[in-house]
Amino acid sequence: MFKTIKKWVLGPPLASAAIHDQRLSKKVALAVFSSDALSSVAYATEEILLVLVTAGIAAVHLSLPIALVIGVLLVILISSYSETIHAYPSGGGAYIVAKDNLGTYPGLIAGASLLTDYILTAAVSIASGVAAITSAFPHLYPYRVGICLFFLTIITFANLRGVKESGVIFAVPTYLFIFSFGLLIGVGFYKYFFGVSATAPLEAIQETQQHLHPLTFFLLLRAFSSGCAALTGVEAISNGVPAFGKPEARNANITLVWMGIILLLMFLGITELARVFHILPGEHETVVSQIARTIFAKGFFYYLIQVATALILVLAANTAFADFPRLASLLAKDGYLPRQLSSLGDRLAFSNGIILLGLAAAVLIVFFGASTHHLIPLYAVGVFISFTLSQTGMVRHWIKLKGKGWFYKVLINGTGAIATFIALIVIASTKFTHGAWMVIVFIPLVIMGFMAVHGHYKSIVEQLHPNLNDLLPPKIHRVLIPVSTLHRGTLKAISYASSISDNVQAVYIVLDPERAVKMKDIWSQWCIDIPLVMLETPYRSVIQPLIDYIDQLLKEEPDQHITVVLPEFVAAKWWQQILHNQTALLIRGSLMFKNNVVVTSVRHHLKF
Amino acid sequence: MFKTIKKWVLGPPLASAAIHDQRLSKKVALAVFSSDALSSVAYATEEILLVLVTAGIAAVHLSLPIALVIGVLLVILISSYSETIHAYPSGGGAYIVAKDNLGTYPGLIAGASLLTDYILTAAVSIASGVAAITSAFPHLYPYRVGICLFFLTIITFANLRGVKESGVIFAVPTYLFIFSFGLLIGVGFYKYFFGVSATAPLEAIQETQQHLHPLTFFLLLRAFSSGCAALTGVEAISNGVPAFGKPEARNANITLVWMGIILLLMFLGITELARVFHILPGEHETVVSQIARTIFAKGFFYYLIQVATALILVLAANTAFADFPRLASLLAKDGYLPRQLSSLGDRLAFSNGIILLGLAAAVLIVFFGASTHHLIPLYAVGVFISFTLSQTGMVRHWIKLKGKGWFYKVLINGTGAIATFIALIVIASTKFTHGAWMVIVFIPLVIMGFMAVHGHYKSIVEQLHPNLNDLLPPKIHRVLIPVSTLHRGTLKAISYASSISDNVQAVYIVLDPERAVKMKDIWSQWCIDIPLVMLETPYRSVIQPLIDYIDQLLKEEPDQHITVVLPEFVAAKWWQQILHNQTALLIRGSLMFKNNVVVTSVRHHLKF
Repeated sequence: MFKTIKKWVLGPPLASAAIHDQRLSKKVALAVFSSDALSSVAYATEEILLVLVTAGIAAVHLSLPIALVIGVLLVILISSYSETIHAYPSGGGAYIVAKDNLGTYPGLIAGASLLTDYILTAAVSIASGVAAITSAFPHLYPYRVGICLFFLTIITFANLRGVKESGVIFAVPTYLFIFSFGLLIGVGFYKYFFGVSATAPLEAIQETQQHLHPLTFFLLLRAFSSGCAALTGVEAISNGVPAFGKPEARNANITLVWMGIILLLMFLGITELARVFHILPGEHETVVSQIARTIFAKGFFYYLIQVATALILVLAANTAFADFPRLASLLAKDGYLPRQLSSLGDRLAFSNGIILLGLAAAVLIVFFGASTHHLIPLYAVGVFISFTLSQTGMVRHWIKLKGKGWFYKVLINGTGAIATFIALIVIASTKFTHGAWMVIVFIPLVIMGFMAVHGHYKSIVEQLHPNLNDLLPPKIHRVLIPVSTLHRGTLKAISYASSISDNVQAVYIVLDPERAVKMKDIWSQWCIDIPLVMLETPYRSVIQPLIDYIDQLLKEEPDQHITVVLPEFVAAKWWQQILHNQTALLIRGSLMFKNNVVVTSVRHHLKF
Repeated sequence: MFKTIKKWVLGPPLASAAIHDQRLSKKVALAVFSSDALSSVAYATEEILLVLVTAGIAAVHLSLPIALVIGVLLVILISSYSETIHAYPSGGGAYIVAKDNLGTYPGLIAGASLLTDYILTAAVSIASGVAAITSAFPHLYPYRVGICLFFLTIITFANLRGVKESGVIFAVPTYLFIFSFGLLIGVGFYKYFFGVSATAPLEAIQETQQHLHPLTFFLLLRAFSSGCAALTGVEAISNGVPAFGKPEARNANITLVWMGIILLLMFLGITELARVFHILPGEHETVVSQIARTIFAKGFFYYLIQVATALILVLAANTAFADFPRLASLLAKDGYLPRQLSSLGDRLAFSNGIILLGLAAAVLIVFFGASTHHLIPLYAVGVFISFTLSQTGMVRHWIKLKGKGWFYKVLINGTGAIATFIALIVIASTKFTHGAWMVIVFIPLVIMGFMAVHGHYKSIVEQLHPNLNDLLPPKIHRVLIPVSTLHRGTLKAISYASSISDNVQAVYIVLDPERAVKMKDIWSQWCIDIPLVMLETPYRSVIQPLIDYIDQLLKEEPDQHITVVLPEFVAAKWWQQILHNQTALLIRGSLMFKNNVVVTSVRHHLKF
């Protein structure tokens, strides 16, 4: 039954040979890999305004110069990543580039930063998408955590189905977003320049007339840091080059440039619209929602904008779902993460990585109560660490390679490295107390995790080197059967135990002396020649006396092997299974650390 | 290591003989069993006001008559439950009373209602306690879900330690609450009567001048229904009689009357204070916080009130943690819930029930975003169903028994039954669209669950009747060992397999043809006389080819037994365990439904 459900939800398994068919066209790839970058338009302007407004309404006009600086940074980044795509057509992004050119540790730092970033992308995008929904439908506000988790589940399942089909699912929202925001910006500027009146939302302005901070340079840097959220996701295409149709590098590059142009126009457009229409961030309504309401009033086009925003944001999480499992599999192949993250599932997707990301994002959403403003400060640090390492790695790459036009390439990536490093320092210092510290603590912990896993895998090879002594058969082989009542399952276990050894004992834990006497009677009626050992249990544990007994036996004859045969039930319906076998499970767990003890499950299948 | 942690967190195990020592004195019992009932003072008034204020500020003055009606209902309930305690000194409350006197189904309805109620008590109390904290410290508001889960975890662990120690933990907050609210009410009325000015919180009044509903009789009934939240938890003492010191019934009764008096005074006092000081419910601050702020300003006593409110509310959940596991164990002993809910843990607490309740409350808190106002409408329906059934059961009890003064007792419990039934109808109809429908849907589902579990346990007895044929040894016993590489674990498994059968095969799943060839080489170098079967896998599954192979073998010779020997690792550190054995786990799960297949774990212990 589980298999049928799985097949229906996730689709039938795909053969290994099908992997090369799962490639994306440019148009679909733009949707899959750029939803993260583009969707940040929905919140980046708001984050800038949130900082500026603390210095008073006049300061808000500085949003445009700040957005222009971020725009310049974007152009530098796009040029830089364009070089990366050509140098690394096999993808892998910052981790591969940093590891290849700067060494293992910088690679691991980039890897840890990116993994952190992807988890945050998933959480922030979904939370922000749901904020667009609750802006339009305020009565849904109390259920926002539940709504976030609902969308997260849908995205996780879409990705478990595999990359190509999820591409198709995600193309529609991305293009709807680009189209509707194009319309918003076009109509907005038309109304502004041709003097068609637009009502400024007065409620929002009142809310913010409270504690004013002075307009310091630090505050401007903080506004810049907040706006840098617009640049997250730019690296997604360079990580995902192998998913493109052939020629991969060329197609990826064209897609990257298009994404950069669209992102730049949309980000500057929305920021300028917010400025000219005097929009200020409010607590219960997003800036984009206010702009759309000012320009279109609460009609069809307003709801179109909100739906498109919500969809692209919720789906932007998909960029993370495309890249997190891929990067995790690279790290797993290098032995820095558990091996099971490196294997393709039967739909040719990295199922374990997808599930892991889904769970991590769910924890963040619940912990921060789906609040975008609390999640975003955590966001940019990881991204800019990986930007910096990746660009620095590229500089080393060109210097080592010294190919055609290498100096020009060093110049481009060097500019990228310096610009992103400066931005990183600005972000880390201005956002430190606003949450960035959590990321700065978390990333080293992740790296320590990498090292621990790596050390363990290395030690395994040595510890498991085959040894002829391991083939020697045990001298004494004793079999124990824990029993609670005499039923068909017990009899089957006895029959099996007798067939594998001549030295079999049944063990009964005395919880109630009266029932123990009854058990002895029944046993003598039925049970042949197998002794029934009675064990007392002062603390009502049914496990501990058994463990103690086994310890005692092993102490008496240290080189014996003991097999514990557990009679288990398999219920006819899944929910009935909950009613059985907990004791067997606990015994299995408790015996795990005992040498020379083998645990065997003899199952009896219930019919109804 | 796990054991050491468990012992440190939960305390050392207690012997069965110690169960009679774990009794509560009256003072401690008042704290443990009445925190639920008393703590509702913190939100019941607010719930009444929230309904009345929708009909305009003038309507708010009707809070006092409504509270008085609820007060009368409280007196009726206390008298009724006092009779119940004497008739049922062994406790068990509504479930036992309804089952004994009205039959199985009414008993199950009461049981399901109470279980639902206890889960809601835990969730509502914690959410409301955290609301008191965020009223005092508004910047904690975004983290309320996380804070709720934190407190929930603490309470769960306190209860896993066992009832007496948790009694001591909970006595201090309850008495702090009673003392500080006594002070609040005393000082409040003093200031009111002697004309000491108190500032009305103007912000709150402004918020509510919006959509006015007409002041209908239905609205008054709805306000009454909301206020009935004050009565939840009154039954806790009668359910918990066996936890009292001897003489149990007398002590429980005295405690019940004291609780009733304290609850009545506090509820009426707070309601009247809110009325005379013109307090209206606000979105971000509780009514109690506003009253305390009005009377004490934001000084020491204000924070004392908030801390006491938060503590008793968060700890009120403890009533549920005392009663849910007890009731679940009664239902489990009768075969309506899984057996493992009926066993005492090694600290003499019903550990499984405690954990189950903790998880269920966590789900509610996350789903409703820790919002008290969304949880409370779900709350009273279950309580009043069990009130009604319990009182009706008592009426039948006295009529059957016809003991001394039976007519007088029938009168008392009859009044209780009729009053609570009328209240139930009022609550269910006025709150239906506000969330009560969820409970009305949920309770029948729970009862269906009871019946299904009961049916299964009944069928088991029949299906497991011992049968001599089960003792016949298998004709052919074949052993399979799935291998991926040749290491010490594999060799141990081979050695074990050879010792239990002469018919052993190793099975290798070919994921990569090159590695398969290498494996064959290594195998022929080492492995003696055991054949290595190579299985192809077109969809990269390492499980399916093995299952198919076993199916094929069983088809060829249907009466053979197959043992699958799984070489497993036991890592030296817990986190390393995550890096191993997933495949073994999956194989074990997949083979679960196969008849005549035994699964054996041969473990190799890693040293570091």
